[in-house]
Amino acid sequence: MTHLPKRLLLGRALRSDRLGETLLPKRIALPVFASDPLSSVAYAPGEVLLVLSIAGVSAYHFSPWIAAAVVVLLFTVVASYRQNVRAYPSGGGDYEVATTNLGARAGLTVASALLVDYVLTVAVSIASGVENLGSAVPFIAEHKTLAAVLTIVLLTLMNLRGVRESGKLFAIPTYCFVTGVCAMILWGVIRGAVLGQDMRAPTAGYEIQTEHSGGLAGFALAFLLLRAFSSGCAALTGVEAISNGVPAFRKPKSRNAANTLAMMGLIAAVMFCGVIVLALATDVKMAENPATDLIINGHPAGGGYQQNPVISQVAAAVFGEGTFPFVFLAAATALVLFLAANTAYNGFPLLGSILAQDRYLPRQLHTRGDRLAFSNGIVLLAGAAAILVVIYDADSTRLIQLYIVGVFVSFTLSQTGMVRHWNRLLAEERDPAARVRMHRSRAINAFGAFCTGLVLVVVLITKFSHGAWVSLLGMLLFYGVMTGIRRHYDLVAEELAADDPDEKRVRPSRVHSIVLVSKTHKPTMRALAYARLMRSDTLEALTISVDAEETAQLRREWEESGMDVPLKILDSPYREITRPVIEYVKRLRKENPRDVVSVFIPEYVVGRWYEQLLHNQSALRLKGRLLYTPGVMVTSVPWQLESSELARKRARRCAEWSAPGSVRRGPAVRPGAGRTRTDRGAGNGGSREGGGPGGEGT
Amino acid sequence: MTHLPKRLLLGRALRSDRLGETLLPKRIALPVFASDPLSSVAYAPGEVLLVLSIAGVSAYHFSPWIAAAVVVLLFTVVASYRQNVRAYPSGGGDYEVATTNLGARAGLTVASALLVDYVLTVAVSIASGVENLGSAVPFIAEHKTLAAVLTIVLLTLMNLRGVRESGKLFAIPTYCFVTGVCAMILWGVIRGAVLGQDMRAPTAGYEIQTEHSGGLAGFALAFLLLRAFSSGCAALTGVEAISNGVPAFRKPKSRNAANTLAMMGLIAAVMFCGVIVLALATDVKMAENPATDLIINGHPAGGGYQQNPVISQVAAAVFGEGTFPFVFLAAATALVLFLAANTAYNGFPLLGSILAQDRYLPRQLHTRGDRLAFSNGIVLLAGAAAILVVIYDADSTRLIQLYIVGVFVSFTLSQTGMVRHWNRLLAEERDPAARVRMHRSRAINAFGAFCTGLVLVVVLITKFSHGAWVSLLGMLLFYGVMTGIRRHYDLVAEELAADDPDEKRVRPSRVHSIVLVSKTHKPTMRALAYARLMRSDTLEALTISVDAEETAQLRREWEESGMDVPLKILDSPYREITRPVIEYVKRLRKENPRDVVSVFIPEYVVGRWYEQLLHNQSALRLKGRLLYTPGVMVTSVPWQLESSELARKRARRCAEWSAPGSVRRGPAVRPGAGRTRTDRGAGNGGSREGGGPGGEGT
Repeated sequence: MTHLPKRLLLGRALRSDRLGETLLPKRIALPVFASDPLSSVAYAPGEVLLVLSIAGVSAYHFSPWIAAAVVVLLFTVVASYRQNVRAYPSGGGDYEVATTNLGARAGLTVASALLVDYVLTVAVSIASGVENLGSAVPFIAEHKTLAAVLTIVLLTLMNLRGVRESGKLFAIPTYCFVTGVCAMILWGVIRGAVLGQDMRAPTAGYEIQTEHSGGLAGFALAFLLLRAFSSGCAALTGVEAISNGVPAFRKPKSRNAANTLAMMGLIAAVMFCGVIVLALATDVKMAENPATDLIINGHPAGGGYQQNPVISQVAAAVFGEGTFPFVFLAAATALVLFLAANTAYNGFPLLGSILAQDRYLPRQLHTRGDRLAFSNGIVLLAGAAAILVVIYDADSTRLIQLYIVGVFVSFTLSQTGMVRHWNRLLAEERDPAARVRMHRSRAINAFGAFCTGLVLVVVLITKFSHGAWVSLLGMLLFYGVMTGIRRHYDLVAEELAADDPDEKRVRPSRVHSIVLVSKTHKPTMRALAYARLMRSDTLEALTISVDAEETAQLRREWEESGMDVPLKILDSPYREITRPVIEYVKRLRKENPRDVVSVFIPEYVVGRWYEQLLHNQSALRLKGRLLYTPGVMVTSVPWQLESSELARKRARRCAEWSAPGSVRRGPAVRPGAGRTRTDRGAGNGGSREGGGPGGEGT
Repeated sequence: MTHLPKRLLLGRALRSDRLGETLLPKRIALPVFASDPLSSVAYAPGEVLLVLSIAGVSAYHFSPWIAAAVVVLLFTVVASYRQNVRAYPSGGGDYEVATTNLGARAGLTVASALLVDYVLTVAVSIASGVENLGSAVPFIAEHKTLAAVLTIVLLTLMNLRGVRESGKLFAIPTYCFVTGVCAMILWGVIRGAVLGQDMRAPTAGYEIQTEHSGGLAGFALAFLLLRAFSSGCAALTGVEAISNGVPAFRKPKSRNAANTLAMMGLIAAVMFCGVIVLALATDVKMAENPATDLIINGHPAGGGYQQNPVISQVAAAVFGEGTFPFVFLAAATALVLFLAANTAYNGFPLLGSILAQDRYLPRQLHTRGDRLAFSNGIVLLAGAAAILVVIYDADSTRLIQLYIVGVFVSFTLSQTGMVRHWNRLLAEERDPAARVRMHRSRAINAFGAFCTGLVLVVVLITKFSHGAWVSLLGMLLFYGVMTGIRRHYDLVAEELAADDPDEKRVRPSRVHSIVLVSKTHKPTMRALAYARLMRSDTLEALTISVDAEETAQLRREWEESGMDVPLKILDSPYREITRPVIEYVKRLRKENPRDVVSVFIPEYVVGRWYEQLLHNQSALRLKGRLLYTPGVMVTSVPWQLESSELARKRARRCAEWSAPGSVRRGPAVRPGAGRTRTDRGAGNGGSREGGGPGGEGT
């Protein structure tokens, strides 16, 4: 119905190139899965300095310690997820681990957290990307919210259209970003330590003046340091992505995934620490409220001041503002952040499909790469992210406050689940070498669970009032809706379970077939021919007389054509179609309650939506009503009009559409290589299971 | 799907009281059909004075002559329609007359004109009603547009909900209005002529100053007088309503209708002339642009001045402003105008149903009182009227410029058609007495056609640039859309005509039945049982394996239950449902092109729209795709879940809904009294026409 406007907007659907069939080597897998965690280097260091600035610039000297704590946590989480990857090579990720080991509620909690997280990944990454781009292009910095919303719209359209995702698409910007940041660190170290040059960030000469500029002590300081640490933990978001993508790796899958994870951890740590150290060395100043707290030449910066991200300030100090490497790094940073946002577009429907399989979401979302289901997910994700971006003025700092809760909920539950997993295996394993390995893994996961749990508590305490409550509310909402859907499906399943002995006793005995007739044209003739083939016990044609003349003509033609099926005419004084048919069918059923009524409806198949409005409306409504009448089956006998060819072509194009995100999902699982979907053998393999031979249907 | 919000807005549907079954006596028929033409007395006299004022107050003395011309025309039209009523007692109205006698194009032109007219009836009547109400309640006059739009919304909701229309509903306000106006005329004449009192309208002391205040002469004056006459012709709108409603009259229908028509003409003429004469006697001043042209105490009236309708000014002069009779008349006038608007709500869908019967509009509109079709018409009508009201600031004077074109198009074509009608009859009639009567009728209709045609030309010339072009554009639009729809239906009918001998030669030979299975629950069991009853040549159960474990369980259960139908399993690596089924069906068809594939789909029937989202989506899409696959019939085997009871109740309520306007349509035509829709005999009567006995279906 809405195909035309959609096509105008989204263009022609891309053909599926079945990219998901090819497995990823490590050098491609790294950028595909790591764009999200690596890109967080663009905002995490700044957040640490920002929080510390509350206690004055002097508090900045705590930042290396906080960076060290974040790196330790990062390594812990990476080490933990290396265990996950080995134990669950199916790529189920945190949801699977939590569900299997901790039960459905924990799993659903993780799922809710991840769904919220995907929304925030989009919001934070795009806000930060726009800020980075804005550091090179002031115009963008001045229209941040608009630019962020437009980027969301663009990404959404791209994904709705079907992105031909390829490893290269991810590899080039990610490697550009990593190379750029590493080159910056290296060149900064050389200039500072070797050449002894003085590098000054654009904000080096500014001062910070806050309420607590004199310094904090005791509990207040500890709380502030914990809050700074919480903010730094933004660097850990997305680490779990690889554990969802194990099937996409080349063999040996688990080992390759684990090694990629380690590599990613190492790069992220180097970049994070490098940026923090350079920021200190170049005297970068970040203030939580730059308008009032940042003092430039003795005056507050004022509302017009745009605070650039740390990474861009460091680049300005090391390379010089406006130089080619500076602009290159800003562009690469923005691009990798947009790619990170794009990963959420891929992850959201994938998680939805898994949740649908477990009946927490509508079943139809289960279909892999189904365009319709996919689109709904995309639009939901984009809408939620856009709302957040608008509410928070595309300010990455304020959005990050919401971000980390979900990540650590899933980290903690996943690691706790892993501990249970090893406990269960240890209870059965007798091989000492294996037991040693398991003990080690359990220790790592337990430590991971402890650390991430601790961080979760810290994050909740330090950030609750800053925005974490919004995330919790979102999680609660998802949790409630999914629980409700599952309950509905369970109730229906119970109602439908074939355990009713009565059902088998009162078997239907005969079939009355009714063919609805309005004219003696081809669709009617076909419907009659088909109805005759389905040998029912009685067969009659039924017409509703809404116009005496037309009915008389039909009767005449019926007689002349020597039809061997009786024509029954029902009068309809109010020119209704539905009611007389329903009443007739009900009467038939009342007279013979054990019989079944089969209603054949000839249908026109047209190709354009406005043609659809001109046909079948009565048939459609009649079918709708007949569904509520027990003991009735409704058969559509379609007649394809010439224009239906259009719709067939359209449907074919839709079927060939390739769902974004196929690269990271890996190839589809084929239970048996010989039983493809066009292989007749598959069916025969199945039909052996049935009792009787195929040709006997009664 | 959208039932809940609708019900919150529109309330519970009213039960049908089958009021349409009772026939109308003349005393009730008069108000039912005459509220539209009688209510035009509320604005037509004012329009005459308004146009004349352009040539200064001195031109007012032409107004009795113009009133006389209008009355002559009114009597001509009434006399003409008395012939229509006698010749076409079926109530087809102008559209039927024009189509039968002048061909389809003329008929379609009349239909387009009438459709536009209904929209304008709503807009003009409500605008005028609000102005009349505003003359008693200044607050309403100050918020005219808002009040008019709210009234449209209110009328729309009332009509969507289903108004329990009754003769009394119309009788009381219409008789109040007629009595009020007549009393005012009588009291005015007594006060003025008998008691010799001086009655002064509120505007009696004002002056009018226009460009042409010095008076016009020659062509310019003639043109102005013609324009004033055109405006006065607004009094004739709605005269044709009775000719549509002949079936609703008591017997002798035609004579009663003709007499009612005459009575209506008489009342309208008396009221129209009375108001004009009293307006002159009380020195009412109306200006086309009161803000600048109306001089109060030497100064222009200014933008804040609200010009009250003539009828209310006369009432103020005769009864005194604010007295009980004054307020009573203002309320009765507004009420009768709103009733007039309501008649359009009844007429629009009725005409739509007739047009649908002739395939100029979608077929489903044909159903009488079908709620869905009716609703669409109502919303379309209300939307168009509301747009006009907003564009023209609810100014009845500006709206009337658009109004009269459509009316006179249909008058002229209808009367011309009647002339042809009598010519045709005269060619065959031999009885001299009858011939004399026919000659007389033809003369009346010819005179009517001539007069209305002349007025149409006058209206087009004098009003084209004032707004008549908008009506013509609207008519063109309706004409184009209806022609397009008819062409589509004709093309389809041609494509479907069962004249292809090949069609009969290549007969389908066998049926492959496929039952889609996902679980072994009750709906599946029922679908299998039904499919078995419909003895096809082969029968197999088909399942799509999207989850290896679920499929294995299904296979196990299938085996255990000792099913006598083979189970075929198709693998779907991409977890798709639709494509594997379509491909399988296509392969079956390719192997045996003469065979037919019958696909049985078990369906859950639920009661709430959000439950619908959770079920059947795959089935729905599969059905959609299968329709495009030739040689396939699709059978839904519904399983009614407990919640479907809700939907059944809802459907029943909808079926019991009573369409507004049933009073004026008269009772439904029942071809044979004994063959009601619950009468088994009707069916048997029909089945005699068929060849074979009912129990034999092949």
